[in-house]
Amino acid sequence: MTDLFDSLEFNDDGLIPAIAQAYDTGEVLMMAWMNRESITETLKTGQVCYYSRSRGKLWRKGESSGQTQRLVELRIDCDGDTILLQVEQTGVACHTGRRSCFFRAVQDGALIQIMAPSFTSEELYGPSTKLSGEET
Amino acid sequence: MTDLFDSLEFNDDGLIPAIAQAYDTGEVLMMAWMNRESITETLKTGQVCYYSRSRGKLWRKGESSGQTQRLVELRIDCDGDTILLQVEQTGVACHTGRRSCFFRAVQDGALIQIMAPSFTSEELYGPSTKLSGEET
Repeated sequence: MTDLFDSLEFNDDGLIPAIAQAYDTGEVLMMAWMNRESITETLKTGQVCYYSRSRGKLWRKGESSGQTQRLVELRIDCDGDTILLQVEQTGVACHTGRRSCFFRAVQDGALIQIMAPSFTSEELYGPSTKLSGEET
Repeated sequence: MTDLFDSLEFNDDGLIPAIAQAYDTGEVLMMAWMNRESITETLKTGQVCYYSRSRGKLWRKGESSGQTQRLVELRIDCDGDTILLQVEQTGVACHTGRRSCFFRAVQDGALIQIMAPSFTSEELYGPSTKLSGEET
Protein backbone atom coordinates (compact mmCIF):
# COMPACT_ATOMS: atom_id res chain seq x y z
CA MET A 1 0.00 0.00 0.00
CA THR A 2 2.84 2.40 -0.76
CA ASP A 3 0.49 4.36 -2.97
CA LEU A 4 -1.96 5.10 -0.14
CA PHE A 5 0.57 5.87 2.57
CA ASP A 6 2.51 8.14 0.23
CA SER A 7 -0.65 10.24 -0.04
CA LEU A 8 -1.56 10.40 3.67
CA GLU A 9 -0.61 13.17 6.09
CA PHE A 10 -0.53 12.01 9.70
CA ASN A 11 -0.50 14.52 12.56
CA ASP A 12 2.37 14.88 15.04
CA ASP A 13 0.99 11.93 17.01
CA GLY A 14 1.01 9.73 13.91
CA LEU A 15 -2.79 9.84 13.69
CA ILE A 16 -5.33 10.79 11.04
CA PRO A 17 -9.07 11.44 11.53
CA ALA A 18 -11.41 8.86 10.00
CA ILE A 19 -15.10 9.45 9.35
CA ALA A 20 -17.33 6.37 9.21
CA GLN A 21 -20.36 6.62 6.92
CA ALA A 22 -23.01 3.94 6.36
CA TYR A 23 -22.42 2.84 2.78
CA ASP A 24 -26.12 2.26 2.12
CA THR A 25 -28.01 5.06 3.89
CA GLY A 26 -25.26 7.70 3.78
CA GLU A 27 -25.65 8.37 7.49
CA VAL A 28 -22.48 9.70 9.15
CA LEU A 29 -21.96 7.32 12.06
CA MET A 30 -18.88 8.54 13.92
CA MET A 31 -15.45 10.09 13.70
CA ALA A 32 -12.41 8.43 15.25
CA TRP A 33 -8.66 8.25 14.68
CA MET A 34 -6.44 5.79 12.84
CA ASN A 35 -2.70 5.22 12.75
CA ARG A 36 -0.66 3.43 10.12
CA GLU A 37 -1.09 0.07 11.84
CA SER A 38 -4.88 0.34 12.18
CA ILE A 39 -5.23 1.34 8.52
CA THR A 40 -3.12 -1.62 7.44
CA GLU A 41 -5.15 -4.00 9.60
CA THR A 42 -8.47 -2.56 8.36
CA LEU A 43 -7.48 -3.04 4.73
CA LYS A 44 -6.15 -6.52 5.42
CA THR A 45 -9.07 -7.88 7.44
CA GLY A 46 -11.95 -5.81 6.03
CA GLN A 47 -13.05 -5.06 9.61
CA VAL A 48 -12.59 -1.47 10.74
CA CYS A 49 -9.89 -0.93 13.34
CA TYR A 50 -9.23 2.53 14.84
CA TYR A 51 -6.60 3.79 17.26
CA SER A 52 -7.94 4.68 20.70
CA ARG A 53 -6.26 7.84 21.98
CA SER A 54 -7.66 7.33 25.49
CA ARG A 55 -6.38 3.75 25.73
CA GLY A 56 -3.29 4.25 23.58
CA LYS A 57 -3.78 1.11 21.54
CA LEU A 58 -5.60 -0.39 18.56
CA TRP A 59 -9.37 -0.31 18.87
CA ARG A 60 -11.06 -3.05 16.91
CA LYS A 61 -14.51 -1.55 16.54
CA GLY A 62 -17.07 -3.83 18.13
CA GLU A 63 -14.55 -5.86 20.11
CA SER A 64 -16.47 -5.30 23.35
CA SER A 65 -19.96 -4.57 22.00
CA GLY A 66 -20.21 -6.81 18.93
CA GLN A 67 -21.18 -3.71 16.91
CA THR A 68 -18.56 -4.17 14.20
CA GLN A 69 -17.99 -2.24 10.99
CA ARG A 70 -17.20 -4.05 7.75
CA LEU A 71 -15.15 -1.92 5.38
CA VAL A 72 -16.80 -1.33 2.02
CA GLU A 73 -14.39 1.33 0.74
CA LEU A 74 -11.63 3.53 2.14
CA ARG A 75 -11.46 7.04 0.65
CA ILE A 76 -9.12 9.94 1.34
CA ASP A 77 -9.53 13.67 0.84
CA CYS A 78 -7.71 16.14 -1.39
CA ASP A 79 -5.07 17.01 1.22
CA GLY A 80 -4.67 13.40 2.34
CA ASP A 81 -5.28 14.40 5.94
CA THR A 82 -8.72 12.83 6.45
CA ILE A 83 -10.08 9.35 5.75
CA LEU A 84 -13.68 8.52 4.85
CA LEU A 85 -14.67 4.92 5.56
CA GLN A 86 -17.71 3.54 3.77
CA VAL A 87 -18.87 0.84 6.17
CA GLU A 88 -21.54 -1.74 6.77
CA GLN A 89 -22.45 -1.19 10.41
CA THR A 90 -23.60 -4.13 12.49
CA GLY A 91 -26.16 -2.80 14.97
CA VAL A 92 -25.27 0.68 16.18
CA ALA A 93 -22.11 2.80 15.98
CA CYS A 94 -22.47 4.77 19.22
CA HIS A 95 -21.59 3.53 22.69
CA THR A 96 -24.86 5.15 23.88
CA GLY A 97 -26.80 2.60 21.82
CA ARG A 98 -27.70 5.02 19.02
CA ARG A 99 -27.16 4.34 15.31
CA SER A 100 -24.95 7.41 15.01
CA CYS A 101 -22.79 9.33 17.50
CA PHE A 102 -24.21 12.57 16.07
CA PHE A 103 -27.51 12.47 17.95
CA ARG A 104 -27.50 16.05 19.27
CA ALA A 105 -28.32 19.16 17.23
CA VAL A 106 -28.66 22.88 17.78
CA GLN A 107 -32.25 23.90 17.12
CA ASP A 108 -33.68 27.31 18.04
CA GLY A 109 -30.52 28.07 19.99
CA ALA A 110 -30.66 24.97 22.19
CA LEU A 111 -28.95 21.59 22.05
CA ILE A 112 -31.53 18.85 21.65
CA GLN A 113 -31.46 15.09 21.08
CA ILE A 114 -32.63 14.09 17.62
CA MET A 115 -32.18 10.31 17.87
CA ALA A 116 -33.29 7.76 20.47
CA PRO A 117 -31.14 4.78 21.53
CA SER A 118 -31.82 1.47 19.82
CA PHE A 119 -30.14 -0.46 22.65
CA THR A 120 -29.34 0.20 26.31
CA SER A 121 -25.73 0.11 27.53
CA GLU A 122 -26.56 -3.07 29.42
CA GLU A 123 -27.77 -4.72 26.23
CA LEU A 124 -24.52 -3.74 24.49
CA TYR A 125 -21.98 -4.40 27.23
CA GLY A 126 -23.71 -6.21 30.07
CA PRO A 127 -24.62 -4.77 33.51
CA SER A 128 -22.72 -2.02 35.32
CA THR A 129 -20.44 -1.11 32.45
CA LYS A 130 -19.47 2.48 31.82
CA LEU A 131 -17.59 3.09 28.61
CA SER A 132 -16.50 6.17 26.73
CA GLY A 133 -16.80 6.76 23.02
CA GLU A 134 -13.45 5.16 22.27
CA GLU A 135 -14.19 1.76 23.77
CA THR A 136 -17.12 0.34 21.84
CA MET B 1 -25.10 29.27 23.18
CA THR B 2 -23.85 28.26 26.63
CA ASP B 3 -25.56 24.92 26.18
CA LEU B 4 -23.56 24.03 23.05
CA PHE B 5 -20.16 25.26 24.23
CA ASP B 6 -20.59 23.50 27.58
CA SER B 7 -20.84 20.26 25.60
CA LEU B 8 -17.89 20.79 23.25
CA GLU B 9 -14.35 19.54 23.76
CA PHE B 10 -11.76 21.60 21.89
CA ASN B 11 -8.23 20.29 21.38
CA ASP B 12 -5.12 21.93 22.82
CA ASP B 13 -5.14 24.42 19.93
CA GLY B 14 -8.74 25.42 20.67
CA LEU B 15 -9.99 23.59 17.57
CA ILE B 16 -12.56 20.92 16.87
CA PRO B 17 -12.97 18.88 13.67
CA ALA B 18 -16.09 19.60 11.62
CA ILE B 19 -17.48 17.29 8.93
CA ALA B 20 -19.60 18.90 6.22
CA GLN B 21 -22.33 16.71 4.74
CA ALA B 22 -24.76 17.67 1.97
CA TYR B 23 -28.11 17.85 3.75
CA ASP B 24 -30.03 16.53 0.73
CA THR B 25 -27.85 13.83 -0.86
CA GLY B 26 -25.98 12.74 2.30
CA GLU B 27 -22.64 13.06 0.51
CA VAL B 28 -19.72 13.79 2.84
CA LEU B 29 -18.14 16.87 1.31
CA MET B 30 -15.10 17.72 3.45
CA MET B 31 -13.60 17.85 6.90
CA ALA B 32 -12.11 21.04 8.31
CA TRP B 33 -11.58 22.66 11.70
CA MET B 34 -13.55 25.20 13.69
CA ASN B 35 -12.78 27.29 16.74
CA ARG B 36 -15.20 28.95 19.14
CA GLU B 37 -15.32 32.12 17.05
CA SER B 38 -16.03 30.34 13.77
CA ILE B 39 -18.82 28.29 15.36
CA THR B 40 -20.40 31.42 16.78
CA GLU B 41 -20.19 33.19 13.41
CA THR B 42 -21.60 30.15 11.57
CA LEU B 43 -24.61 29.95 13.87
CA LYS B 44 -25.16 33.70 13.69
CA THR B 45 -24.89 34.14 9.92
CA GLY B 46 -26.04 30.74 8.70
CA GLN B 47 -22.99 30.63 6.40
CA VAL B 48 -20.32 28.09 7.32
CA CYS B 49 -17.07 29.57 8.63
CA TYR B 50 -14.11 27.34 9.51
CA TYR B 51 -10.72 28.11 11.03
CA SER B 52 -7.81 27.76 8.62
CA ARG B 53 -4.85 26.17 10.39
CA SER B 54 -2.50 27.00 7.50
CA ARG B 55 -3.48 30.68 7.44
CA GLY B 56 -4.17 31.00 11.18
CA LYS B 57 -7.44 32.85 10.76
CA LEU B 58 -11.16 32.48 10.11
CA TRP B 59 -11.96 30.87 6.79
CA ARG B 60 -15.33 31.88 5.45
CA LYS B 61 -16.00 28.98 3.11
CA GLY B 62 -16.40 30.26 -0.42
CA GLU B 63 -14.87 33.67 0.27
CA SER B 64 -12.44 33.29 -2.63
CA SER B 65 -14.31 30.77 -4.79
CA GLY B 66 -17.96 31.66 -4.28
CA GLN B 67 -18.59 28.02 -3.33
CA THR B 68 -20.34 28.79 -0.06
CA GLN B 69 -22.04 26.47 2.41
CA ARG B 70 -25.35 27.41 3.99
CA LEU B 71 -25.83 25.83 7.40
CA VAL B 72 -28.90 23.63 7.64
CA GLU B 73 -28.13 22.05 11.01
CA LEU B 74 -25.16 21.79 13.38
CA ARG B 75 -24.85 18.45 15.18
CA ILE B 76 -22.31 17.20 17.72
CA ASP B 77 -21.22 13.70 18.66
CA CYS B 78 -21.49 11.75 21.91
CA ASP B 79 -18.13 12.91 23.24
CA GLY B 80 -18.63 16.49 22.05
CA ASP B 81 -15.31 16.41 20.22
CA THR B 82 -16.57 16.38 16.61
CA ILE B 83 -19.10 18.55 14.77
CA LEU B 84 -21.29 17.42 11.87
CA LEU B 85 -22.54 20.25 9.67
CA GLN B 86 -25.56 19.58 7.50
CA VAL B 87 -25.05 22.08 4.68
CA GLU B 88 -26.47 23.28 1.41
CA GLN B 89 -23.40 23.46 -0.82
CA THR B 90 -23.26 26.06 -3.57
CA GLY B 91 -21.33 24.51 -6.45
CA VAL B 92 -18.52 22.28 -5.21
CA ALA B 93 -16.83 21.79 -1.84
CA CYS B 94 -13.32 20.88 -3.02
CA HIS B 95 -10.66 23.32 -4.17
CA THR B 96 -9.91 20.86 -7.00
CA GLY B 97 -13.33 21.58 -8.49
CA ARG B 98 -14.93 18.34 -7.32
CA ARG B 99 -18.22 18.10 -5.40
CA SER B 100 -16.47 16.35 -2.50
CA CYS B 101 -12.90 16.37 -1.23
CA PHE B 102 -13.10 12.57 -0.87
CA PHE B 103 -12.53 11.75 -4.53
CA ARG B 104 -9.82 9.09 -4.09
CA ALA B 105 -10.46 5.51 -3.00
CA VAL B 106 -8.46 2.35 -2.46
CA GLN B 107 -9.62 -0.28 -4.93
CA ASP B 108 -7.77 -3.54 -5.58
CA GLY B 109 -4.86 -2.25 -3.52
CA ALA B 110 -4.37 0.96 -5.50
CA LEU B 111 -5.47 4.54 -4.95
CA ILE B 112 -7.78 5.64 -7.78
CA GLN B 113 -9.88 8.70 -8.55
CA ILE B 114 -13.62 8.06 -8.28
CA MET B 115 -14.92 11.55 -9.10
CA ALA B 116 -14.13 13.98 -11.92
CA PRO B 117 -13.91 17.75 -11.42
CA SER B 118 -17.03 19.78 -12.17
CA PHE B 119 -14.96 22.97 -12.56
CA THR B 120 -11.33 23.80 -13.31
CA SER B 121 -9.27 25.80 -10.82
CA GLU B 122 -9.32 28.69 -13.28
CA GLU B 123 -13.10 28.65 -13.34
CA LEU B 124 -13.18 28.73 -9.56
CA TYR B 125 -10.40 31.20 -8.78
CA GLY B 126 -9.29 32.80 -12.03
CA PRO B 127 -6.02 32.16 -13.93
CA SER B 128 -2.72 31.16 -12.32
CA THR B 129 -4.07 30.57 -8.86
CA LYS B 130 -2.74 27.73 -6.71
CA LEU B 131 -4.64 27.13 -3.52
CA SER B 132 -4.57 24.46 -0.87
CA GLY B 133 -7.57 22.76 0.69
CA GLU B 134 -7.90 25.37 3.41
CA GLU B 135 -8.29 28.38 1.13
CA THR B 136 -11.41 27.77 -0.90
